[in-house]
Amino acid sequence: MSDEFVVKSARHTELLELLDAFGKFGETEKGGIARLAASPADGQVRDFLCAWFKERDFRVLVDEVGNIFGVLDLMKGPVEKHFFCGSHLDSQPEAGKFDGALGVACACIAALCLQESVKSGRLDPSFRYVVVCCWTGEEGARFQPSLVGSSVYSGAKTAAETLAIKDSDETSLAVALDAIGYRGKDTIPKADQYLELHIEQGAELEKSKTPIALVTNCWGAKKIRLEFKGVPDHTGPTPMQERRNALLAASHGIVEVEAIANKAKATLYSSVGRIEVRPNSPNTIAEHVQMWIEFRSPDEAALEAAEKDLLKALDVIERGTGCTAHVSSTETRNVVTFDKIAIATIEAGFEAASIPFLHLKTIAGHDAVRLQEVCPSTLLFAPSKAGITHSPEEFTADEDICAGFDAMLEALSNLIARPVSEQQSGRQSQ
Amino acid sequence: MSDEFVVKSARHTELLELLDAFGKFGETEKGGIARLAASPADGQVRDFLCAWFKERDFRVLVDEVGNIFGVLDLMKGPVEKHFFCGSHLDSQPEAGKFDGALGVACACIAALCLQESVKSGRLDPSFRYVVVCCWTGEEGARFQPSLVGSSVYSGAKTAAETLAIKDSDETSLAVALDAIGYRGKDTIPKADQYLELHIEQGAELEKSKTPIALVTNCWGAKKIRLEFKGVPDHTGPTPMQERRNALLAASHGIVEVEAIANKAKATLYSSVGRIEVRPNSPNTIAEHVQMWIEFRSPDEAALEAAEKDLLKALDVIERGTGCTAHVSSTETRNVVTFDKIAIATIEAGFEAASIPFLHLKTIAGHDAVRLQEVCPSTLLFAPSKAGITHSPEEFTADEDICAGFDAMLEALSNLIARPVSEQQSGRQSQ
Repeated sequence: MSDEFVVKSARHTELLELLDAFGKFGETEKGGIARLAASPADGQVRDFLCAWFKERDFRVLVDEVGNIFGVLDLMKGPVEKHFFCGSHLDSQPEAGKFDGALGVACACIAALCLQESVKSGRLDPSFRYVVVCCWTGEEGARFQPSLVGSSVYSGAKTAAETLAIKDSDETSLAVALDAIGYRGKDTIPKADQYLELHIEQGAELEKSKTPIALVTNCWGAKKIRLEFKGVPDHTGPTPMQERRNALLAASHGIVEVEAIANKAKATLYSSVGRIEVRPNSPNTIAEHVQMWIEFRSPDEAALEAAEKDLLKALDVIERGTGCTAHVSSTETRNVVTFDKIAIATIEAGFEAASIPFLHLKTIAGHDAVRLQEVCPSTLLFAPSKAGITHSPEEFTADEDICAGFDAMLEALSNLIARPVSEQQSGRQSQ
Repeated sequence: MSDEFVVKSARHTELLELLDAFGKFGETEKGGIARLAASPADGQVRDFLCAWFKERDFRVLVDEVGNIFGVLDLMKGPVEKHFFCGSHLDSQPEAGKFDGALGVACACIAALCLQESVKSGRLDPSFRYVVVCCWTGEEGARFQPSLVGSSVYSGAKTAAETLAIKDSDETSLAVALDAIGYRGKDTIPKADQYLELHIEQGAELEKSKTPIALVTNCWGAKKIRLEFKGVPDHTGPTPMQERRNALLAASHGIVEVEAIANKAKATLYSSVGRIEVRPNSPNTIAEHVQMWIEFRSPDEAALEAAEKDLLKALDVIERGTGCTAHVSSTETRNVVTFDKIAIATIEAGFEAASIPFLHLKTIAGHDAVRLQEVCPSTLLFAPSKAGITHSPEEFTADEDICAGFDAMLEALSNLIARPVSEQQSGRQSQ
């Protein structure tokens, strides 16, 4: 892609500036961001987004779990129909500036482009409103599990149970949202269709030099929270055979979670990324350890098998360490297939516009996975350097951002436009 | 022991009340205490102790690392000679009310008893001053390693390096002491002899129904701080074989530390009680893990062998996980033998007073271990129920406290008293 591509349109400049502005909130010394859900930095970027909406005549709505919706009236199309488009602005504790933020920035600018196209008569929409969404707590870094806001919107979780989720400092989501002023009361319209652009979090697009991917499906996942209970005592005088060391038990558990993935016949990924140890003092045997386990697979049976293998392994760990193990919660996310009609529509549009594309799957969960439960939903991927993500090293070049945006706008225009058949019948009825 | 034993003396009542008063500072719902070194609760109990000293005409001195010294003038004996006696008031994060506090309370009351004995002519002291000590940060729970204050007093560590030690929130000991007002400037007299009473942290006294133990020596210890470095990335899409998971590497390390103790030919205890994981998010592969390893043994060669075994194991872990391991600090504490003349003197006194006693060793470090480096030092143990310690379950009954105190006072009196030979020569020279 050439340099002139970047500056070909004022909208590209506006997009890059908006993404850059988002990246200033919670910016870290390493050049990444730390913008945990409902943190002060998240509150600031939300304020900025809401101001941006209001300056451009979007109506701003906030629901009870802090999801923000910027509603733009296209002044044409069926009044009851809403096309949702967006992503999230929260981040991991030490993250990059593209995960989530790219999707929100592109949705903002795309909404303006669609409005222009309708005004100028180039687009005849079958949706009256474009709704730019910023979902609360997609990352699951501060409040677990992930996809907090979109799970409530889709009805997978209730607002009450979600607001009660606590972070590691025992602060509930309700309290955290109140602190930043984002526990809203607005009634949110029903989404009739959804589209989300996200960075790939893999390197297929980069390797094949392709600007965009259509995501066909999402792996299933099983997220298990496990507790080990031991007995606190002095690490000095307590005889080795009398110790009930919960951190030792947890370490065997972490090694086992890795082994289950390595031994699985089907494709299975596993991880333990977070652990909380109490009292976590060098001189006291650990009394209590909590750990957050993930299994992910394109094969739901493999997830069930992994859970069974884990429970078997826990028996052995309990006998070996004298500690007790307890599964405190299990969340299963089935394999999700994104809407095939939308994919076919976008493919046709990309082919007509000579935009090269790939078909990919996603292993990570995204808000689009939750939205697919309530309306036809589409997830697009833009390139991400070396596939690195959840790290300050995460990077997408300006050229790739603009090419990804153009492809997304093409996809959106095709999905929003009244089908040719309807347009013709519309003309007939006029 | 009978009920009337408890109330036989007003000093016993005073002792139990003082210990009870200490236990109110940092008291927890579980009935234990949380009084980390230089925390607000530690500041409050220090204020209480200093007020107690001043009301009873002790001169209060505070050194640059916050050690508190209550100096009581016996008005008799060689002016330059100081007998130190004490323990510590800091605690583990979830601790009992006896570890450390019992020794400080007994030293306070014992000093008053000694003063009385001198005044009444029952004791002819060869020390002019009794100095009750409260050592800073014995536990090593907030600031590592342990024995912070006594290590500076003994010269094992400099004040400057010790004040620079940081807790897990990156607060230095200097800042923490300033916050509670205990970074002193007083010049502290040289200790000529030291005695400390502590709970046993084992169950030998309880099992044999013996009121007191003379500790003959302290196991050696090796405290190693280890770091694992991995690569942060998304726990979803990152292929398993490309992950560099520092928490997985650390878990193998913890399992190995346990195995080294179990395989050792000599007696060797090991533990990992504290671990710090970054970023510690469920969806991000751990980039960095620090862990605090302890090896303890009565055999210094076994400690050296354990360290070598650990380094060998780290090579295997590095190859298996793709992470790097780095030993960031190693502290070796040699086996310590307590002063034999003092032990013989106390034994003779116990036998004369018909006080039954045991000989024990200590596995845990105590401030007396550091003091033995600068003067003849004695460590006495009082019973502790089931040997449980570093836990709210830690418990010593009033009867055992009073019997332990009586034995300690007998020991102190014997150590402080001018030897009969000197007393006679004193009389001749008068």
